[in-house]
Amino acid sequence: MTVLDLNCDVAEGFGAWRIADDDALLEVVSSANIACGFHAGDPATMRRACATAVAQGVAIGAHVGYRDLAGFGRRHLDLTPTELTDDVLYQLGALRAFAEAEGGRVGYVKPHGALYGAIGSDEAQAGAVVEAVRQFDDTLPVLGMPGSRWLALAAAAGLPAVHEAFLDRGYTPQGRLVSRRSPDALLSDPELVARRCVRLAEAGEIVAVDGTVLAVDARSVCVHSDTPGSLELARAARAALTGAGVTLRSFV
Amino acid sequence: MTVLDLNCDVAEGFGAWRIADDDALLEVVSSANIACGFHAGDPATMRRACATAVAQGVAIGAHVGYRDLAGFGRRHLDLTPTELTDDVLYQLGALRAFAEAEGGRVGYVKPHGALYGAIGSDEAQAGAVVEAVRQFDDTLPVLGMPGSRWLALAAAAGLPAVHEAFLDRGYTPQGRLVSRRSPDALLSDPELVARRCVRLAEAGEIVAVDGTVLAVDARSVCVHSDTPGSLELARAARAALTGAGVTLRSFV
Amino acid sequence: MTVLDLNCDVAEGFGAWRIADDDALLEVVSSANIACGFHAGDPATMRRACATAVAQGVAIGAHVGYRDLAGFGRRHLDLTPTELTDDVLYQLGALRAFAEAEGGRVGYVKPHGALYGAIGSDEAQAGAVVEAVRQFDDTLPVLGMPGSRWLALAAAAGLPAVHEAFLDRGYTPQGRLVSRRSPDALLSDPELVARRCVRLAEAGEIVAVDGTVLAVDARSVCVHSDTPGSLELARAARAALTGAGVTLRSFV
Amino acid sequence: MTVLDLNCDVAEGFGAWRIADDDALLEVVSSANIACGFHAGDPATMRRACATAVAQGVAIGAHVGYRDLAGFGRRHLDLTPTELTDDVLYQLGALRAFAEAEGGRVGYVKPHGALYGAIGSDEAQAGAVVEAVRQFDDTLPVLGMPGSRWLALAAAAGLPAVHEAFLDRGYTPQGRLVSRRSPDALLSDPELVARRCVRLAEAGEIVAVDGTVLAVDARSVCVHSDTPGSLELARAARAALTGAGVTLRSFV
Repeated sequence: MTVLDLNCDVAEGFGAWRIADDDALLEVVSSANIACGFHAGDPATMRRACATAVAQGVAIGAHVGYRDLAGFGRRHLDLTPTELTDDVLYQLGALRAFAEAEGGRVGYVKPHGALYGAIGSDEAQAGAVVEAVRQFDDTLPVLGMPGSRWLALAAAAGLPAVHEAFLDRGYTPQGRLVSRRSPDALLSDPELVARRCVRLAEAGEIVAVDGTVLAVDARSVCVHSDTPGSLELARAARAALTGAGVTLRSFV
Repeated sequence: MTVLDLNCDVAEGFGAWRIADDDALLEVVSSANIACGFHAGDPATMRRACATAVAQGVAIGAHVGYRDLAGFGRRHLDLTPTELTDDVLYQLGALRAFAEAEGGRVGYVKPHGALYGAIGSDEAQAGAVVEAVRQFDDTLPVLGMPGSRWLALAAAAGLPAVHEAFLDRGYTPQGRLVSRRSPDALLSDPELVARRCVRLAEAGEIVAVDGTVLAVDARSVCVHSDTPGSLELARAARAALTGAGVTLRSFV
Repeated sequence: MTVLDLNCDVAEGFGAWRIADDDALLEVVSSANIACGFHAGDPATMRRACATAVAQGVAIGAHVGYRDLAGFGRRHLDLTPTELTDDVLYQLGALRAFAEAEGGRVGYVKPHGALYGAIGSDEAQAGAVVEAVRQFDDTLPVLGMPGSRWLALAAAAGLPAVHEAFLDRGYTPQGRLVSRRSPDALLSDPELVARRCVRLAEAGEIVAVDGTVLAVDARSVCVHSDTPGSLELARAARAALTGAGVTLRSFV
Repeated sequence: MTVLDLNCDVAEGFGAWRIADDDALLEVVSSANIACGFHAGDPATMRRACATAVAQGVAIGAHVGYRDLAGFGRRHLDLTPTELTDDVLYQLGALRAFAEAEGGRVGYVKPHGALYGAIGSDEAQAGAVVEAVRQFDDTLPVLGMPGSRWLALAAAAGLPAVHEAFLDRGYTPQGRLVSRRSPDALLSDPELVARRCVRLAEAGEIVAVDGTVLAVDARSVCVHSDTPGSLELARAARAALTGAGVTLRSFV
């Protein structure tokens, strides 16, 4: 593997609030998951992220989430499939307006937080998200974890399904993410993260929290912008990857 | 004048709440101002309104408003022009996703409530709305009151500016709408409304609350869906207009 | 049993939206579950409901719910216990301000919708609600279904736990409510509801959807204000109960 | 003057978002204006702020604002007096629940942002806020700028009206705050702010942006927690005041 994408979440502020330094992150990554207003992301923040992404040649992804500002989209919400399809389509449309106004386009979809988690296995919610993407643009790539239910449904619906791995999250021996309520959930050492990226790029491997070596096929790696030190993690990953001869490029 | 458009607000519910019988209204009008989620209108409601409008051959308009669910968009909000442009563009994009998913398109823009009122005279907010429409689609018609500041700016920006009159609202001798806080604000007698429509269509005249006869040039007439008896008013208007030989047809 | 309470949900509008005719309902019931702003209920609506309840001698209950206006609190939200305790306490405090300003008091707590459902069996969420009530007023009665987990925890914490039954909802043979997604969920025939009430009051029995006769010990019966025809159901229940010699009186 | 209060805004985060380091600020100030959920401040954040304030012996104030999370309460919202009274009372009640659960009490009221600005001169909104406070607790002190309309109405209604000055905001020669949209709006030099405090405490004077010396009678001084470097400004103020022999103590 000589080409990898580095994606991170941006536009996760709201009004006066900020999570991360979007401008700095957009200098480092090749794909930006832009919040669309339901878990985070007000219109002004979305526009600015789109404008900067276009200026930096960074791909724009729709980071759609549950309608839950108070919980930052990190709490499961038991929507009906119909409600979920409509909530996702609304967010996709809103983001497209900013992407296009700034001379770009929505290049892919990556759900956020608890929604991302749910559609890994919940058939009904997974199908609902796929349906929203298909209605919006039936050629649009979707980004998710290998083995997730929603990627399988997306592929079956003809959407390009792109695999990602997580730089800053612990993996269970089964290849899942360690719960955010556990102390092993987050990795914060830039050097460790950098080594992990290179091993993934060169050998297709990630080491789980118990030492198990997992085979991981990923075209993209993710750093969460709200992980403490996310910018340093992203920079370390980029430097290590380019130093190892890996080209950072979006899959879009 | 032998052709007139009849527009009304739909999709003004939210979640479990409803204002009017959208399905019934969409059988009567030729243009539907669909709320976009900021003052009213959740995604499911927006989709249903789009689907029904497409099925009935009714034009879809974006009824954009201030972000104020608690106030139904009827309270002035002192946004900066940049904030307002972004808030409007967000709503336009969201609606477009549903219109297109249902086989239709956003045919025009008509702001709601306090925003509609503000941009009649507030240069900065008027310009901000025009800028959002222009960025979204620089050929999109806008619908408003003759003499309003925002229609003038829209026309100057090359957007088709369409004039409307209000069936269910009292007019001041100066040709403005009587404030909703006044008892003369709303008309609710279907027969009176019907006569008013026909006079407008045939003679281009509306009688103000003090008896002044106003010359009004309007390609569209509006009934508010939350006026008590709105459905009966709309039906009476339609029947009277078609009885008088006026063709009801959208301007889109 | 010669005394029974009739409770219903009120203040379930928000801003311009209404669910039911609160004023009329408050002439019929003896206890009012007042929405507190998270699933429904804006401040003005809450105040008006408190004022009318005080004027009519109706007990004021806090109808606390998940923070989910778009879903009317009818969708499960996976809060941590700490988040839930804080969300409930916030709502209790807000309602108390209106109750006291209108010369009344918060007399009991009854959770709403998906929260009510969850705490029937979810130990963590049940405990979190009990903790909020305890912190607010450790003598405050709570109202719920017999056998629910949260009533047991409330009783263990020293809170008076009052049993209710549902007039307008189908029961499973196990004594649970039929899911709202099933066609048997709602009863809408006033005569049937009236007979059901009297049988409950006189014999302590409710007939489940399959004909099973359930023994139900209830001090209060509930009609949902958003059930179609809720006002007629409530009036029918009241008339039948008083006709059968049952006194309608709050448990507060 | 040998006693002065130092107040700042806390709990201005929401969900995952933070504005300032509340714990650190609460070690420095003597009064905390706690956001109540409408412009900022989720229940968990409010509780934590109350708990820390009680532990540090800091007075708890209700920092009530417009319902405008997206605008952080910094945009004027044209509420009717009745709506505003109810919105304020709701927030007061919610905060009281947390203050009391943590062993404290609501000691005063200080409106936030655009509401604070509006009630300096808007008679109707000023009266509405006073009415809410009066209904909540007719002995509760209110904190505001000398000369403001709402303090006059509060005093007339029998509420203790306490004067404050702003450490971190430029003053016009007329004794008003320079608009936040102007470059002179904010002061960020700790040394300058410290000298300004001491001069205010010792001589009752503040120097306006044009050099005019204003006579200012203030029992409290404020630093905004979202001013860049607010913590350093507050610490510099505290050190300078105590160094000059001034006792920092709440007015509650």
